Amino acid sequence: MEIMRVVDELVCTRRMPGLQACALRVLENQQGAMSVATDPVGAPPGQWVFTTSGSAARLAMTDATTLTDLTICGIIDNWVPEATVVAGQQSRT
Amino acid sequence: MEIMRVVDELVCTRRMPGLQACALRVLENQQGAMSVATDPVGAPPGQWVFTTSGSAARLAMTDATTLTDLTICGIIDNWVPEATVVAGQQSRT
Amino acid sequence: MEIMRVVDELVCTRRMPGLQACALRVLENQQGAMSVATDPVGAPPGQWVFTTSGSAARLAMTDATTLTDLTICGIIDNWVPEATVVAGQQSRT
Amino acid sequence: MEIMRVVDELVCTRRMPGLQACALRVLENQQGAMSVATDPVGAPPGQWVFTTSGSAARLAMTDATTLTDLTICGIIDNWVPEATVVAGQQSRT
Amino acid sequence: MEIMRVVDELVCTRRMPGLQACALRVLENQQGAMSVATDPVGAPPGQWVFTTSGSAARLAMTDATTLTDLTICGIIDNWVPEATVVAGQQSRT
Repeated sequence: MEIMRVVDELVCTRRMPGLQACALRVLENQQGAMSVATDPVGAPPGQWVFTTSGSAARLAMTDATTLTDLTICGIIDNWVPEATVVAGQQSRT
Repeated sequence: MEIMRVVDELVCTRRMPGLQACALRVLENQQGAMSVATDPVGAPPGQWVFTTSGSAARLAMTDATTLTDLTICGIIDNWVPEATVVAGQQSRT
Repeated sequence: MEIMRVVDELVCTRRMPGLQACALRVLENQQGAMSVATDPVGAPPGQWVFTTSGSAARLAMTDATTLTDLTICGIIDNWVPEATVVAGQQSRT
Repeated sequence: MEIMRVVDELVCTRRMPGLQACALRVLENQQGAMSVATDPVGAPPGQWVFTTSGSAARLAMTDATTLTDLTICGIIDNWVPEATVVAGQQSRT
Repeated sequence: MEIMRVVDELVCTRRMPGLQACALRVLENQQGAMSVATDPVGAPPGQWVFTTSGSAARLAMTDATTLTDLTICGIIDNWVPEATVVAGQQSRT
């Protein structure tokens, strides 16, 4: 599972029927890359969450036929990403 | 799901029978890398879309035996990618 | 699906029984990384092709129990990769 | 399977019901990137472990419907990562 | 499928029951990153092999419930990786 931060809701009026009822969130990973995830948890912008991918992302939805490959599974209580990541990278560069 | 921009249609006269009826699009992700996706939505070049991958990509097609691993699931209404990505990367470099 | 160029056949006399009848190709992606794919299309070296991965790669083979995770799905008619990729990367660097 | 080091437990009070009974660990890979994995082995912080991903991650749990895409499969007895990785990278740079 | 070099056996006395009977190998890819794979072929250290990932990795094992996501599928007869990769990268840098 990946650790990501909720950036925003995704505004998308034209989408596949298989995604119609899902809340969609724009997430940013620890390297700054953006993804879109379905959100059955209700995570507000700014929160750090962890996500599951692949077929597990579908199982995490109430309706397991949802057309997702990334789902928010939980909200992380305390996360200090900058310090941790920078420290981890510096010890290797 | 990934956020990508439609670059063009893919012209490909010689392909597997399992892909015969699908519209194929060349997509570019936010780092400039190219992929090919099946398009059941009808997304024109220049639009920002989000895609689902893996087995969910097949479920997103009318015919779930389509030989795809990437399908366009929706068109994003407003996306300002350059500013967002550059800001995200600068805060980490 | 990914866009790749056929580099060569893979010579491999000692392999798993589940791959015995397949033509194997060495492919290079647009960043120069090499992979191996099964080839039901018959793509000659130098051609640009697109590939499907994961469980779709097995469905693309005549025998869907083939031990592959990457299969060539079609030959791209016209592809000018250098210019496109370089342009895409420069606008972000 | 990937080689990773256990950094910490993940504190996460609000999570999906399908993850309720699982121990969660924050892992760091050899490049310093963080992930979250389910841990049926009981690996303490500081240990090097190897993980399985995708649908195999679910099969590795006692309850195969667990919403995970990354599970710790074993603890590596002796691992000297810095030296090995630096040597591997230097020979290519 | 990926092209990798066998570095060593993996010594791991404490592992999940679902991996008990498998030979495990540490592999290095062409960029120097390490992974762990199950080995039904018997590939000695130093050999270049190709691997299959995802659910195909399980199908490649005699027991298809093995908890693996990476399996060695064949030994490559002749591989000159340094020259090929460096040439491929230089033409793009």
